[in-house]
Amino acid sequence: MARARSSNSVGIVTPQSLQVAEPLPLDCGKSFGPYELVYETYGELNAARSNAILVCHALSGNHHAAGYHGPDDDKPGWWDKCIGPGKPFDTDRFFVVCPANLGGYQGSTGPGDHNPATGRPYGPDFPVVTVADWVRSQRLLQQHLGIDCWAAVAGGSLGAMQVMQWSIDYPDALRHALVIAAAPRLSAQNIAFNEIARQAIVTDPEFHGGRYYEHGVVPRRGLMLARMLGHITYLSDEAMRAKFGRDLRGGRINYGFDVEFQVESYLRYQGQSFVDRFDANTYLLMTKALDYFDPAARADGKLAQAFAPALARFLVISFTSDWRFSPARSREIVDALVDAGKHVSYAEITSDVGHDDFLLTMPHYVRTLNGYLDRVAEEAGV
Amino acid sequence: MARARSSNSVGIVTPQSLQVAEPLPLDCGKSFGPYELVYETYGELNAARSNAILVCHALSGNHHAAGYHGPDDDKPGWWDKCIGPGKPFDTDRFFVVCPANLGGYQGSTGPGDHNPATGRPYGPDFPVVTVADWVRSQRLLQQHLGIDCWAAVAGGSLGAMQVMQWSIDYPDALRHALVIAAAPRLSAQNIAFNEIARQAIVTDPEFHGGRYYEHGVVPRRGLMLARMLGHITYLSDEAMRAKFGRDLRGGRINYGFDVEFQVESYLRYQGQSFVDRFDANTYLLMTKALDYFDPAARADGKLAQAFAPALARFLVISFTSDWRFSPARSREIVDALVDAGKHVSYAEITSDVGHDDFLLTMPHYVRTLNGYLDRVAEEAGV
Repeated sequence: MARARSSNSVGIVTPQSLQVAEPLPLDCGKSFGPYELVYETYGELNAARSNAILVCHALSGNHHAAGYHGPDDDKPGWWDKCIGPGKPFDTDRFFVVCPANLGGYQGSTGPGDHNPATGRPYGPDFPVVTVADWVRSQRLLQQHLGIDCWAAVAGGSLGAMQVMQWSIDYPDALRHALVIAAAPRLSAQNIAFNEIARQAIVTDPEFHGGRYYEHGVVPRRGLMLARMLGHITYLSDEAMRAKFGRDLRGGRINYGFDVEFQVESYLRYQGQSFVDRFDANTYLLMTKALDYFDPAARADGKLAQAFAPALARFLVISFTSDWRFSPARSREIVDALVDAGKHVSYAEITSDVGHDDFLLTMPHYVRTLNGYLDRVAEEAGV
Repeated sequence: MARARSSNSVGIVTPQSLQVAEPLPLDCGKSFGPYELVYETYGELNAARSNAILVCHALSGNHHAAGYHGPDDDKPGWWDKCIGPGKPFDTDRFFVVCPANLGGYQGSTGPGDHNPATGRPYGPDFPVVTVADWVRSQRLLQQHLGIDCWAAVAGGSLGAMQVMQWSIDYPDALRHALVIAAAPRLSAQNIAFNEIARQAIVTDPEFHGGRYYEHGVVPRRGLMLARMLGHITYLSDEAMRAKFGRDLRGGRINYGFDVEFQVESYLRYQGQSFVDRFDANTYLLMTKALDYFDPAARADGKLAQAFAPALARFLVISFTSDWRFSPARSREIVDALVDAGKHVSYAEITSDVGHDDFLLTMPHYVRTLNGYLDRVAEEAGV
């Protein structure tokens, strides 16, 4: 029996597809194509085509940001808490567009797809893609949809990096930039976490140099470890303490190597279930895109100079319990925007969960988004 | 040609060994033995036998805390910066004893050693040992050496946990307890890191259920990942930034999966070199001992109550840049000691490196140790 939908869900949605014949020029110097961009939309584009918001996804996200894929689907899109009627990204007012990034899994063209040039899956032949490459492809989608200017571009984490890149590369194609739980570039520690995740994957004997599809296996162990490691950085120490403490799964110590503490059980479950819904080559590509993002590097190391071309107004949001991209990293972005003479609002949300807070709906966070998006709607005439 | 020794080195040292026939009762309920305790000593025991200091090692340490193993040895013991003539643990005054813990590698009896009951290496048959088990075995060593009361017991990290356990289990067998870079028990996040390290090892196909010795292999990949992960927690984000920043190894981005950032190169080197000098089963055992340490658990969850039997005076030292065991964790120990009415001095050392700071010699740290150990020496009559 179909699950009852709450009245503020966008309901059942169907992914759409844009086939692009023209190869996409990439930062690495190669071109890539033909390729497919898969995306979803929620709400209606108004006649003036002024109410479109682009939502960019993070490492493990895809085009399915809100709603359900069928009557029996019980897992909504990844940002369903914030996208829908009456929610911050209010689909009664906005036309929300969320594309899957190139290199992803079960969305836009990615390493698991058929490579027409070789007759086998891309695997390691899939080019290394960057945040700027993704933004370049999203620009084509914008044009395909007949939208001259996004009312806003929004995203958290790796998604927020795409937002910043949009403001720099296509200044007149967006009016507002919502940069949530972001950093202007990864720290050495951030890169270190990514590198260990990658090493876990590539040293898995079932990785087969990235050609595991052809061997009928997946590097389960490596991808599981990568995801477990990711989870440590997504949750604050306090959140882990509140959620698990040192609770023992069986109630007492068993002096062995089976799961003992609840946190072990949680991490193993998270790691194992991820393997069934994600691709190892995609994980490698996404972490590389994170590592490479560094707009200041092309502006003599000066972030303010990198933002110089931007015309958008910015909302920057950080979360106090986020230790992956701490508020201090967001303040680097705010400081650079101020130095560059841009319009910027900044909110530091008191939170508990950690980096994943951007997916949730703490009252202060929702009030901040609502207040800002009211202004965006007003300007869009909706 | 032999390397010139600095005048404040203990010089060339030879490990000693204590064979124990009597099985050691363990927290897990089993007994273990016969076994060997390997240890080193530096300095001379005085006639009153009042100047002995026990040094307890941490996760990857062993009995070789100071000096060199031969004229061509260019790698001193793990705490050589702090142990030697004129150093904080001044071997002109103190008789310093450092045993290797049971379950270790190339020291006291461990999982790689021959199991007389089966005729093959212990491997997974080696019992899960705890901090209290180690302290119980160290007590036998103390008696073997004819020492009634240590002038002090000292250690950092997992070593500091042994120091706390000594103060609780053998109150009249030590006069001072030096608890450095410690936590009263692991947080859920600490356990999570350990669990990922263990999963990396046990899911390595060359782990063979812990019987890799018999297969002529070692779980290199898993142990390498575990060590890389450990390194992230030993260094502060700031230290990684200062050491590596986002420096590129080849000077420019190569859009590929070879080592690009210096921090990647560093971590891979650390991981790979660790495999040649450490044992995977030992890593599992050491992380479990860390996870299990929780003296409050046996005192209704009250740490102050756990410390009630202690007679030692305490010096607790933490480091501001340590995020594995932050100063807040050390203050939990200090607060509990104060609540329990114990003598405790506390120093929070401003530092940059992170958890590994306890192995270094920042001036404030050395002054703190020197000042405290002067008092210990005075009481010991040396």
